Amino acid sequence: MKKEIISIGILGLGTVGQGVLKILQENKEFIEQGIYPYKISLKKIADKNKEIILEDKSYYEILTDSAEEVVTDPEIDIVVETIGGFEPARSLIVRALEKGKHVVTANKEVVAKAGYEILNLARKNKVHFLFEASVASAIPIIGVLSRSLTSYPLKEMAGILNGTTNYILTKMSEENRDYEDALKEAQEKGFAEVDPDKDINGFDSLNKIFILSAVAFKAKINPNNIYYEGIKNISKTDIEYARELGYKIKLLALAKNGGKELDIRVHPALIREGHDLASIGGAYNAILVHGEGFGDLIFSGLGAGALPAGSMIVSDIVEIVKDYDNYNSKFKDFEEKKVKDFKQTHSSYYLRIRVKDRPGVLAEIAGSFAKNKVSFASVIQKGEPGEIVDIVFLTHKAKEGNAQEALKEVARLECVEKICNVIRVVEI
Amino acid sequence: MKKEIISIGILGLGTVGQGVLKILQENKEFIEQGIYPYKISLKKIADKNKEIILEDKSYYEILTDSAEEVVTDPEIDIVVETIGGFEPARSLIVRALEKGKHVVTANKEVVAKAGYEILNLARKNKVHFLFEASVASAIPIIGVLSRSLTSYPLKEMAGILNGTTNYILTKMSEENRDYEDALKEAQEKGFAEVDPDKDINGFDSLNKIFILSAVAFKAKINPNNIYYEGIKNISKTDIEYARELGYKIKLLALAKNGGKELDIRVHPALIREGHDLASIGGAYNAILVHGEGFGDLIFSGLGAGALPAGSMIVSDIVEIVKDYDNYNSKFKDFEEKKVKDFKQTHSSYYLRIRVKDRPGVLAEIAGSFAKNKVSFASVIQKGEPGEIVDIVFLTHKAKEGNAQEALKEVARLECVEKICNVIRVVEI
Repeated sequence: MKKEIISIGILGLGTVGQGVLKILQENKEFIEQGIYPYKISLKKIADKNKEIILEDKSYYEILTDSAEEVVTDPEIDIVVETIGGFEPARSLIVRALEKGKHVVTANKEVVAKAGYEILNLARKNKVHFLFEASVASAIPIIGVLSRSLTSYPLKEMAGILNGTTNYILTKMSEENRDYEDALKEAQEKGFAEVDPDKDINGFDSLNKIFILSAVAFKAKINPNNIYYEGIKNISKTDIEYARELGYKIKLLALAKNGGKELDIRVHPALIREGHDLASIGGAYNAILVHGEGFGDLIFSGLGAGALPAGSMIVSDIVEIVKDYDNYNSKFKDFEEKKVKDFKQTHSSYYLRIRVKDRPGVLAEIAGSFAKNKVSFASVIQKGEPGEIVDIVFLTHKAKEGNAQEALKEVARLECVEKICNVIRVVEI
Repeated sequence: MKKEIISIGILGLGTVGQGVLKILQENKEFIEQGIYPYKISLKKIADKNKEIILEDKSYYEILTDSAEEVVTDPEIDIVVETIGGFEPARSLIVRALEKGKHVVTANKEVVAKAGYEILNLARKNKVHFLFEASVASAIPIIGVLSRSLTSYPLKEMAGILNGTTNYILTKMSEENRDYEDALKEAQEKGFAEVDPDKDINGFDSLNKIFILSAVAFKAKINPNNIYYEGIKNISKTDIEYARELGYKIKLLALAKNGGKELDIRVHPALIREGHDLASIGGAYNAILVHGEGFGDLIFSGLGAGALPAGSMIVSDIVEIVKDYDNYNSKFKDFEEKKVKDFKQTHSSYYLRIRVKDRPGVLAEIAGSFAKNKVSFASVIQKGEPGEIVDIVFLTHKAKEGNAQEALKEVARLECVEKICNVIRVVEI
C-alpha cells in the first residue's frame, strides 16, 4: 500500500527553521494541493534551547531538545536541517540519510564542505538530499540549473550572492556612507550577522558559487582552490572614481566553464553602470547565467530571510513528495574538474595609486606595467597639484600573474607612496 | 525490459524546428549525460516543403512531407511540434497524444486556445504535454512556476512578454525614433514578423500571460475575458513626457491573484525609471513574480529566436526522458476562476489632452474628472501659449470604469480638442 502521509521533522528553530514552521502551517492547504494525493504532517521539531518561545503553543507537544530523536524516529520521512554551521549539522544529516530519510537543508557550509559525500550517501540509500535554499534564498537557481537548463552546457555565471556585502556597498554608493557606518546599519537591521566576517571577506559567496558551479557544470571541484577576496578595502573614494568611469562596485562571484578547467573566483568588481547586475541593490541577490544557445538569463530576488529561505525549503519538500514513490536521484555523477590557477586568469584592473606629484611619475609607473605586459586604457588624476596625489588607472585585459608582478614593482618605485586599491573590472 | 532509446519526431522545420535540430545534434553528448541511462534518437522530421534546404545532408534520409507519418509512427515516443499557428498544429498534437506519444511544443496559440483540453487528453493517455518554450522563450518560467514556486500562492505577476513591441519601444525611447521607423527596423532585423499585428496589438502578450496565469494560479480561465491593448498609439511625445515624469513606457502583461477573481490584462504602462522591469531593453523579455513570503523574483532573458526557444524545447524533452518510466502528470487540476471585469480594476493614469489654450480650461477638465472620482496627482503644461496646447495629467488611483466615464465627458467639453492618449501607470 502506498504511503499517503509524509512525516516531517525539523532540526533547529532559528530564523529559517521558524520560517519553515510558519509556511507549513499557513500554506498547508495550498502545499497539499500541489502534492495531491499525498499529505504532509509535522511529526517532531528539535531545538537545543528548551526555553524556546513559539507563537503557536501546539508546537510544544512535538518539541524536543534531542536532535537524535528526530533523525532516528522511524516514522519521520523527511528531515529539515536548519541548525546552520558545520557540526553537528553534518553528522545529523548523515545519520538521517543512513536511516533512509530524505534531507532538505539551507546549510551552505555543510553543502560546500561535505556535499559530494553526502550526495553519494543519499544516492546509496535511495533518498534525496536537496539544498535549494542554500544559495540565494528565494531564487530557485539550483532547480533552474539542474532541471531547466539541460540543453546546453553553461558557459558562464556571475552572481551577487551575499546580501550583507551588497547592502553595505549599496549604502556606500547611494548614500555616500562609510564602510563602518554602513556595516553597523546592516547589523542593526538584521541584514548582517553579529559576526559578519565570513560575509565581508567573501567566504560566504565562495561557498555559494562553489555549490552553483558543482551543480551547473556537474563538476567535482576543490573549493580550497578558489580565490576569494572581500570588500573591506573598498572605500568611498573608489566608489566615486568608479562612478566617474561609468561603473559600480559589487562583490561578484564568477564561474567560467573552460571545459576541463573552471575559472571560479570571488572578488569585488567594477561592472558597467546600466548592466542589469549593477542595479541589484540592498539585500537582493542576482545570478546571471550565460549559455551558448540561449544567451543571458538573469534571476534576481531576496537573498536571505526566514520566509525567502523557508519557501525554498518547503518547495524542496514538495519536490520530494510529488514523486514520492518513484525515487530518482536529482543529481547525477560529478566529473572531476580543476579550478584554474588564479594567476593564469585574465582581468582588466582598476588601480588607485598614491604618488609623489612630480614630473615623470606617470612614465615610471607606465614603464613598470608595460614591462609586465599590462597596458592602460585610461588614467584619471584629479584635484590640485600638491605633494601627494592619487592617480587612477584602468588597464586593458592582462594576466593576473603579470598584474601582480607589475604591482609589486610599482610599489617599490621611489615615487610611489602606496597602492591604495586594486579592483578587477568585469565585462559580462 | 526498460526502453533505453527514446525516439523523437519533429513536425515543422521553421526557425524553431531547425533550432531544435541543431541543438539535438550539437549537444547530443551533453544532453545524454543528463538523461543517463536513456539515449535519444531522432527518428523522423516532417516539413510540408519538399524542397527545404537542410545544412546537414544526413537529415534528408529521415525527412518526410507527411506530418501524419510522424504522429502515427509507432516507434516515435516524443513529438516536437514546431509548425506554429493553430491548425493543423492542434490536430496533429491531439493525434500524437491519442497515439500515446508525449508532445513538446513552443506553440502559444495552441496552448492558449486549446491547452486545457489537450492537457486533459494527455493525462488520460498518461503522456506529457509540455510547453516551456511557448512563453518568454529562453526563460524557464513555466518550470519555475510549476516546480519551484510551490510553497506560497503567487500574489502577482508582471511581464514584458513580447520582444517585438519591447524592441520598438526601446528604439523609440533610446534613439528618439518614430514608431513606424522602429517597427521597420525590427522587421528588417527579424525581430518582428512580416505581419506583426498580433505582436503590436497585444494579442501575443495576452496569450502568454494567460498561459502563465493558468500555470501559476492553477486556474481555468476564459482568455476572451482578458483586456488587451497594443502600442500603436504610443508616440514619441508620450515617451518624452513619461521620461520627464520619471517613467518609462513598456507593454506590460499583468496578473493579480484576487482569490476567486484574477485581474489579468495587457496594456502599455508607465513604470518608474529605475525599476528592474524598466531597464529590460530590446528583444529581451522579463517576468516579475511576487509572492507573500518570498517577495519579488525577477527573471529575464531572450524572448525569441531559434536557439532560445529550441533550448527550452530540448529541456522539456529532457524533463520527459529523465523520469521516462515513472509517469506523473506535471500539471494538476485547474480550478475555474473568473477574470475580473476590466472596468472594476484600478489604475493611475497618464492622460495627454489637447485643449484650446484659454483661462478656465484646467478647471473645467478637473471638474469632469472630480465628478467621476478621478483626482490628479500632477499636471504638466509646457511650451509657448498658443491656440492649442497639450496638457499632461497623472491621476491618483481610480476605478477603470470611472476613468472611462470621465474621459467620455471630457472629450465632449467644448474646450477639449482631443484626448491624445491614455496610458495606465503601474506601480510594481
